[in-house]
Amino acid sequence: MRGIPESIRKLADELQELPGIGPRQAIRLAFFVSTMGANQVKNLSRAVDELSRLKICERCFFVHQNPSTSSGQIKLSLCDICRDKNRKHDLIAVVEKETDLISLENTKKFNGRYLILGAIPKTGMLDDQQKLRLENLKSFIKKELMQGSPTSVGSRTSKNSGLAEEIILAFNPSSVGDFHASFLAKELAPFAKKISRLGIGLPTGGEIEFADDETLGGALERRG
Amino acid sequence: MRGIPESIRKLADELQELPGIGPRQAIRLAFFVSTMGANQVKNLSRAVDELSRLKICERCFFVHQNPSTSSGQIKLSLCDICRDKNRKHDLIAVVEKETDLISLENTKKFNGRYLILGAIPKTGMLDDQQKLRLENLKSFIKKELMQGSPTSVGSRTSKNSGLAEEIILAFNPSSVGDFHASFLAKELAPFAKKISRLGIGLPTGGEIEFADDETLGGALERRG
Repeated sequence: MRGIPESIRKLADELQELPGIGPRQAIRLAFFVSTMGANQVKNLSRAVDELSRLKICERCFFVHQNPSTSSGQIKLSLCDICRDKNRKHDLIAVVEKETDLISLENTKKFNGRYLILGAIPKTGMLDDQQKLRLENLKSFIKKELMQGSPTSVGSRTSKNSGLAEEIILAFNPSSVGDFHASFLAKELAPFAKKISRLGIGLPTGGEIEFADDETLGGALERRG
Repeated sequence: MRGIPESIRKLADELQELPGIGPRQAIRLAFFVSTMGANQVKNLSRAVDELSRLKICERCFFVHQNPSTSSGQIKLSLCDICRDKNRKHDLIAVVEKETDLISLENTKKFNGRYLILGAIPKTGMLDDQQKLRLENLKSFIKKELMQGSPTSVGSRTSKNSGLAEEIILAFNPSSVGDFHASFLAKELAPFAKKISRLGIGLPTGGEIEFADDETLGGALERRG
C-alpha cells in the first residue's frame, strides 16, 4: 500500500503479530494511535513496557507481579493462586491460555491450581515449551504431592500419595481440544486418580430450538 | 474479573480505547503481550512511541514524517501528497479517515488532494475540530486557488478562479454518510464548480443474485 508513513507501517507490523488482528485492522489501529494525543500515546507505550516486568509462575506459568520468595533453599516465584494455602494443590486444571484460567476463576467454582499449557499449535503436536510444562507438572506431582516437602504450599487434601486427586483437561470442546485431551489423558493417567474434562451440553440459559446439531447431540449423549 | 495482574489490566484499559477492540479482546491481547519475549515487547512499545513524532499535514491533516520546509515566509509542514506538484490541488476528496485516503490511493485513480475530516460523530454533528478543518479547506480554496500565491504548490489546472474544480465527498454510502454529504454539499457549494460523491452500485465482480436489496435498488436507480 502506498502513502503509509514508515512509522505507521512499523507499528502495524508489530500489531499484526497479535492474535486476532489482521493486516487491515493493524493499519487502522496504527492510524488511530497516530491521531491520539501525545499523552495517550505515552500511556499506551508505557503500559506495554510495564508488561516486560511481569514474571511467570514457576508452577502454573501464569503471569504475576509477586516478588520472589525464599522457601527452604529454593527461590520461588509463584503466582497468587499457587501461593494460596487455601487452594487444593492436588486438583489441577490444565488450560490452554491465561484467559481460560481467568474465565474459570470467574466462575468461583474451582479451588485447585492450574497448568497453563499454551495455545495448542495447529499442527496438532505439542511444542518443546509445552512438553517442558508437562514435565514440570509431572515432577510437581511426583515430588510435591509425594514427600510433603517444605516447598509444597498448602495442599490440605494431599495424602502424599504421589498422585493428583484429579486433573481436569479444560480444553475447548472442539475436535482439536478432544484430540489433545485424549492424548494428555493417556500421558497423565499414571499421575492422577482421576482425569476429567469440562461438561459438554446446552449452555445454561440456552434454548433447544437454537442449539446447533452438534451441541444438542452432545447434550443428548451426555444426558443425566 | 479477579486474578488479573494490575499491569495486564492497565494495558487492557488502554487497548480498549482503540476502535474495534472490546473488553474481552483487550484482555486477551494484553495477556498475549505478557507472554511475548522482552525484545518483542520493547519493539512494540517503541513502535507506539515513534508515532508521537509524526506530524499532521497542515493542509489535508494526513499524518507524515516530512521535515518542515520554509516556503516564502510561511513554514509549511506538508505531507507527500500535498507536496506533490504533479497532483491537482483543485480536485479535492473529503474523507472521514486516514484509512479511507489509503484505500483511495491504492486505486491509483485519484490524482487530487484530500481533506481528512475525521470520523463523523454518531450524534450527527461535526465537532469543533472538524469545523476548523472545513474552514481550513475553504480558506485554502479562496486564497491558494485564487491568487496563485507562492505557497500554492503545483496546481497545474488551477485557473485562479478561487473555486475548486471538483470536491468529491468520499463518505460511506450509508445513511450517516448520505446525511453528511448533503450537509457538506450545501456548505461547500460556493467553493467548487462541482460537488460529487463516489459511485454507488454493485461491487465489481459481485453477483446480482447475492446483492442485498438496497445495493441492487441503488444500482438500478443509478444505472447508465
